[in-house]
Amino acid sequence: MTTRRKIKEAGIRNQAIDPASPVMQFGADKPLMLDSGAVLSPFTIAYQHYGTLNAARSNAVLICHALTGDQHVANKNPVTGKDGWWQTLVGPGKCIDTDRYFVICSNVIGGCMGTTGPASINPVTGEPYGTDFPVVTIRDMVRAQAMLIEALGIETLFCVVGGSMGGMQVLEWAASYPEKVFSAMPLATAAKHSAQNIAFHEVGRQAVMADPEWRAGRYLEEGTRPEKGLAVARMAAHITYLSEPALQRKFGRKFQDRVAPTFSFDADFQVESYLRYQGASFVERFDANSYLYVTRAMDYFDIAADHGGQLAKAFMNTKTRFCVVSFTSDWLFPTADSRALVHALNAGGASVSFVEIDSDKGHDAFLLDEPELMATTGGFIAAAARARGLGR
Amino acid sequence: MTTRRKIKEAGIRNQAIDPASPVMQFGADKPLMLDSGAVLSPFTIAYQHYGTLNAARSNAVLICHALTGDQHVANKNPVTGKDGWWQTLVGPGKCIDTDRYFVICSNVIGGCMGTTGPASINPVTGEPYGTDFPVVTIRDMVRAQAMLIEALGIETLFCVVGGSMGGMQVLEWAASYPEKVFSAMPLATAAKHSAQNIAFHEVGRQAVMADPEWRAGRYLEEGTRPEKGLAVARMAAHITYLSEPALQRKFGRKFQDRVAPTFSFDADFQVESYLRYQGASFVERFDANSYLYVTRAMDYFDIAADHGGQLAKAFMNTKTRFCVVSFTSDWLFPTADSRALVHALNAGGASVSFVEIDSDKGHDAFLLDEPELMATTGGFIAAAARARGLGR
Repeated sequence: MTTRRKIKEAGIRNQAIDPASPVMQFGADKPLMLDSGAVLSPFTIAYQHYGTLNAARSNAVLICHALTGDQHVANKNPVTGKDGWWQTLVGPGKCIDTDRYFVICSNVIGGCMGTTGPASINPVTGEPYGTDFPVVTIRDMVRAQAMLIEALGIETLFCVVGGSMGGMQVLEWAASYPEKVFSAMPLATAAKHSAQNIAFHEVGRQAVMADPEWRAGRYLEEGTRPEKGLAVARMAAHITYLSEPALQRKFGRKFQDRVAPTFSFDADFQVESYLRYQGASFVERFDANSYLYVTRAMDYFDIAADHGGQLAKAFMNTKTRFCVVSFTSDWLFPTADSRALVHALNAGGASVSFVEIDSDKGHDAFLLDEPELMATTGGFIAAAARARGLGR
Repeated sequence: MTTRRKIKEAGIRNQAIDPASPVMQFGADKPLMLDSGAVLSPFTIAYQHYGTLNAARSNAVLICHALTGDQHVANKNPVTGKDGWWQTLVGPGKCIDTDRYFVICSNVIGGCMGTTGPASINPVTGEPYGTDFPVVTIRDMVRAQAMLIEALGIETLFCVVGGSMGGMQVLEWAASYPEKVFSAMPLATAAKHSAQNIAFHEVGRQAVMADPEWRAGRYLEEGTRPEKGLAVARMAAHITYLSEPALQRKFGRKFQDRVAPTFSFDADFQVESYLRYQGASFVERFDANSYLYVTRAMDYFDIAADHGGQLAKAFMNTKTRFCVVSFTSDWLFPTADSRALVHALNAGGASVSFVEIDSDKGHDAFLLDEPELMATTGGFIAAAARARGLGR
């Protein structure tokens, strides 16, 4: 193991048990009741916040992160040293302006950046939970966030925003706590996870569990990690975050540092080299068991199923203002999913605007500096702020 | 290991070294010159044939198999015990009528069903080649087939037909041996492998090579097999062979043998159970090293690159009659790829018909009993037969 790798590994482990974020502790008096029937207690939520809560406590924006995201939206990431994952959108003077709004983002339940998850210490055993951690759902993630928001003294969120799995949380917030959500912006998401998406997640989980270093989930005690399996999982997933045209434009059939094929299994093509890099860098910042739990939460997500099979029922008579955003080349959460959501919101009588953004960047477009995304977000937030009486 | 598994394993091993097919041996006087510059000698081709070669030797049809296919087009497969993979299309009275045509299909170079590949015995060491086997290309596969056809005393093929990697071989035949191909039918294929397809192949290879049982390719000597890695590779690939609508229609979010989620990592969803089955059954019939070699051959495929970057040049002034077929829901080899091919054929002055078949079954549609595929194939073959003077 290289020194760099050791530092990085200690980085993830440290974040899971001693995060570089404020934390909220929920003791035995505040258990988290899970959809599975299990109870998680005690538990911790690690979160970041930016800006200032106003006197009326009416300017709070909750950002929900995606599968492998974290709470570090708009600050240097303590593990990777890179900018926050949504620094293009969130910050002073940005669309989600931290000079005007109190912005919160918490690591999800099941995560590995300080909120209780499988890499956290199980108080019963004194060892990491591993696969003794209970399976959680998107609703469980949101339930935990709602406890955090309450603990922060915030009754109503001005806006809940997120893409992909973050968008699922936005929808769950609007369905479970409509009175607490003034406005909601689900991006590049769906009201249920599709068969194809479950299939890709299952491949990823099988890749992790096929790695003998996974040790039936007990790798942390055993001082190892299923790096190869997790890297394969990430490589497969990463393809689904891009689009065929973007891969074609970025890489095509270009060779990596060579002019001709080597007739070997080396990474001859740039796209191979790129994917290997994505796999290798991911395992330095993410816990393999967390990957299992968080993908599973997405698979179980189906808001309509929680409301008698009718999606519209989930949002009936909601006062929340919605802005639904999809991207033309997103084949993981295609526009059709957003359209189905918009129809259900309309049927429920919601105030909803819908924007399909033309982009060849695939699912990941929601994370990128797309001008139309910036304009849409800025416009929606500004209008919602006026309606909320949040003057400049 | 179960007894059934042992029998199956012996099945693959036996097929690689002692196939249940006729074989053609090429000795030291007939080496296979490979694109890499390496020479494969001696080598063996295992093939199946159906029907009777006519006196004029003008009724031979060559079928080229896909990535994980084999020569058992229209007979019971000796490993799986299942029907031949194209029995819907090939047989007495079928579109490719074995009462009229002499139909040949050979296992590709690099395969594991009797043609020389990484599971074959390296005469230098007396052990399986493993990764000492040279990397081969689609052109190498076709070069070997051309030697087989010549050895069978056939000068011109009436038709060369194949889908996916089989379609690549069809195109290579038409480009490399135009005078030997009267008609050609490339299905669900492309003149080059796309960045996205290379990416998916790389994930599969990394999954195999991540499995410690791969043993740097020497698993056969060591009496083991990288089953978990190969199963993960197959699961990922299998998703790409289907389409999102087909997965939705077949499985949606239906549970497997249960009414509610188990909140575990069991195969709760039918689509998970189906994928696991696909992975598990694949490893019983395919050699992991062959999977590496054959995917690599597809990645390297780029006919235009072999002709100064201009696809049309590959087919200039060809006399071959083409029928190009794509399927609307095939996202691995989308219709755009076939259209690019048709444009190049037109620019080269070829006789070409092009059919895009409406199907929600994805890439695998070319293997299925699709009425429009049957009608197209039957019509094209019949017209070509008339042109060739092959009366009923």
